[in-house]
Amino acid sequence: MNHYQTLLERVHELNDLGKANALLSWDREVNMPRAGTPERIAQMTTLSSLIHRMSTADEMGELIERAAAEIDGADYDSDEAALIRLLRRNYADERKLPADYVARAAGISGRTREAWVKARAEDDFAHFQPWLEQVVALCQELAGYYGYEDEPYDALLDKYETHMKTAEVRAIFDALKAELVPLREAIDRSSARLDDSILHQPYDVARQQALARVIATALGYDFDRGHLGTVVHPFATSFSRNDARITTRWYPDFLSPSLFGTLHECGHAIYEQGTAPELARTPLARGTSMGIHESQSRMMENLVGRSRPFWQAHFPTLQAHFPEALGHSTAEDFYRAINKTQPSYIRVEADELTYNFHIILRFELEQAMLNGDLAVADLPAAWADKMQALLGITPPNDRQGCLQDVHWSRPGFGYFPTYALGNLYAAQFFETAAAQDPAVTEELNRGQTGALLAWLRQNIHRHGKKFVPGELVQRVTGRPLSHDAFMRYATAKFSDLYGLN
Amino acid sequence: MNHYQTLLERVHELNDLGKANALLSWDREVNMPRAGTPERIAQMTTLSSLIHRMSTADEMGELIERAAAEIDGADYDSDEAALIRLLRRNYADERKLPADYVARAAGISGRTREAWVKARAEDDFAHFQPWLEQVVALCQELAGYYGYEDEPYDALLDKYETHMKTAEVRAIFDALKAELVPLREAIDRSSARLDDSILHQPYDVARQQALARVIATALGYDFDRGHLGTVVHPFATSFSRNDARITTRWYPDFLSPSLFGTLHECGHAIYEQGTAPELARTPLARGTSMGIHESQSRMMENLVGRSRPFWQAHFPTLQAHFPEALGHSTAEDFYRAINKTQPSYIRVEADELTYNFHIILRFELEQAMLNGDLAVADLPAAWADKMQALLGITPPNDRQGCLQDVHWSRPGFGYFPTYALGNLYAAQFFETAAAQDPAVTEELNRGQTGALLAWLRQNIHRHGKKFVPGELVQRVTGRPLSHDAFMRYATAKFSDLYGLN
Repeated sequence: MNHYQTLLERVHELNDLGKANALLSWDREVNMPRAGTPERIAQMTTLSSLIHRMSTADEMGELIERAAAEIDGADYDSDEAALIRLLRRNYADERKLPADYVARAAGISGRTREAWVKARAEDDFAHFQPWLEQVVALCQELAGYYGYEDEPYDALLDKYETHMKTAEVRAIFDALKAELVPLREAIDRSSARLDDSILHQPYDVARQQALARVIATALGYDFDRGHLGTVVHPFATSFSRNDARITTRWYPDFLSPSLFGTLHECGHAIYEQGTAPELARTPLARGTSMGIHESQSRMMENLVGRSRPFWQAHFPTLQAHFPEALGHSTAEDFYRAINKTQPSYIRVEADELTYNFHIILRFELEQAMLNGDLAVADLPAAWADKMQALLGITPPNDRQGCLQDVHWSRPGFGYFPTYALGNLYAAQFFETAAAQDPAVTEELNRGQTGALLAWLRQNIHRHGKKFVPGELVQRVTGRPLSHDAFMRYATAKFSDLYGLN
Repeated sequence: MNHYQTLLERVHELNDLGKANALLSWDREVNMPRAGTPERIAQMTTLSSLIHRMSTADEMGELIERAAAEIDGADYDSDEAALIRLLRRNYADERKLPADYVARAAGISGRTREAWVKARAEDDFAHFQPWLEQVVALCQELAGYYGYEDEPYDALLDKYETHMKTAEVRAIFDALKAELVPLREAIDRSSARLDDSILHQPYDVARQQALARVIATALGYDFDRGHLGTVVHPFATSFSRNDARITTRWYPDFLSPSLFGTLHECGHAIYEQGTAPELARTPLARGTSMGIHESQSRMMENLVGRSRPFWQAHFPTLQAHFPEALGHSTAEDFYRAINKTQPSYIRVEADELTYNFHIILRFELEQAMLNGDLAVADLPAAWADKMQALLGITPPNDRQGCLQDVHWSRPGFGYFPTYALGNLYAAQFFETAAAQDPAVTEELNRGQTGALLAWLRQNIHRHGKKFVPGELVQRVTGRPLSHDAFMRYATAKFSDLYGLN
């Protein structure tokens, strides 16, 4: 195993450099004084360039092939075979991008982001339009470099959801739409109105911080291998399975962002904490795709964290933290408040049900722009039309419409659909877990997640990036991804909440 | 300037990797969950090895010489000439160490540290002795690799205080001893007794944290380019002049550690914040030596932070933070409390005056062990003798004697003297500043440090590592380092406090 061992040493080295770079990035959000930005960007650029140089060197490709020959015949499920598969894929992908393109894309993205900030602040789409046109052109160029068989969007989607085809996502989303729109309309027509005003009260920030730790621990997040930091835009990151961190923001008069933000990021971090120790210091030691990662965060945030039994068990803890705000409310009041659903303009503020429409809208518009079917100049009108069709509302301006997200200031088309895929994966996994182990539901009915977590560890977490998402969902649930588990879950939950028949 | 520019790019890259490694280290102390240690050590080892490999490559030496030829004739004081001098020195030094030695020393240090922890906890010198013997042997070997003209200790001292000779330090410390011992004895004989009990009371930690920020800001530490973290063993570090961080610890019933610890670390960080922007991303952008660095921390901690005028100005702020503890005390009470001096066993708890004896003791014992004049087995007895001669006390055990410091668990002989050199540099710089700009004293008399800081920026900080300490002190004060400014300062201050004639 001489070549394989040499390869592994190189892989460990590259992993360590990547984690150092990730720390530079995490620290920038959590601790760094703003004045340190130029030097920090220089440090991150140096690390990124070095990593790129080392991982795309001819020598690396040769080493991968020599090691592959050495382990030829290894079981498909073995760590060794999985590592070779992943390294070959990454090496081939990274070699496809000309250095000139990478530098150009980075330059344009930086300036586009500034233009976007200004355009959004001033609700001035015309200011953003020429920049978005450049981004679309970069995406088209990128799709060309990566290559595709059926349609350009496939090449981009593949970078976030390996081997998944646009046609597959389209079929799933179309099926979802066909059932979700009628459900949304039935809710609109119902006379039930949920009241979420108890969430908007003074909530002491120090107590929110204490609560976040209690709830995160109850969920299964291991603080002995974690850390909770404060940021403006929350995220999770990991430097190893033994150091997987979450971040949160705190509003003094609105409980949801910190509470459900923490539950969400915990789902991501618990996934990373659960990768098998044998995968350490390799690119296998992380979640397999953006969609599967999002399934773990959405499961904790929504399927567990917005469920009735969870709050029947934990509402007394919540009350103990905020006796003034919640002393006169019941667990059922709280459950109904956190599950209010209604069409809204802003994706990141959307509820569990209508969130999916925001994603479908972006998925369809990205394809249209990429294929040249939609001119960037016509985006605001197309946005308004789609929102009306999906959500029954029209944004009053572009700031609350097509200018709301940062994503389109970089050539990252293909990312958006993974958010909704995460919801669907989550429901399908959850349904399977409950069917395979009755303890999952029994424990959740007492507010406990031990059995669920054990199932996730065994079936999903420990594998890290060994299997691409399509393989994983087939192995775990016995069938490909579909919208149906999510619709069963959503229909039952919201029919109950809104008194539909 | 083709080669010089190429060299500069390489230097920037190496700097960035070094700063990434420094962040891995800082984060380990401030944020990292303990479980992350093995992976973090792997990350730091990867970075260190890579940096060592890149900076000692033949190609690097050739590049330095080609760039040096290109800027031949540049002014000695220019950034370019200074960078070449420093790079040549570092390159030569790093090439002197066999890889085998570096790995061996790291291995022994790791295990020696464990042995030291156990030996100190159990007051068992015999357990530590064989390990310390190995450390002494490593130091002797190291001195051989670096080489020396007069005595082996020179080779080690040079790594912390470039170009300073052991004979020079010995002469200064001997002169210091000759005057400091009589002063200490006069204080012992005086009937005055200072009362420091007001420092040992309940001090709310959150208020200590608020106070630390206020006092650090008053001192001139720029929080817009800084950060205050919590740790067990405080230190300062910088990732650039725009991101120079301090750390502190908080005791709920003792004010001094957080307050004077913050002042001390601020002195270090203010130095790094003051390096010239032109030096950014090069090894010149940091303090020039351990001794000069310590002069900046000691100046802020002691010459400013334990002065009467500083607390005459700031005591009301202190009282406002701790009305219960200090409401009935005066600025003079506080000034006397923080300047109580008395012989003690533990270096890190020693006062401003007796601290120097702890260093002289270690400096002399290190030389004796290195030269083979003192067998490690005889260290405890030699320690007791020297402590009696210098401080008039004998430690009751080795835990409070020769086992107290972590330093001797690694081959780092030569570091200790820089602590006392820092005190002497500080006094000499301070005297010069006051003589050259009357505003320095006038402002300090109102508790303000603006003029002092401007003088330090102009004469010391901006140069970073351009001049070795001997050059710097000569340029700035017009004479070599001596003990006399410190003795003038200490004699005046403590004669007043203790009513000596």
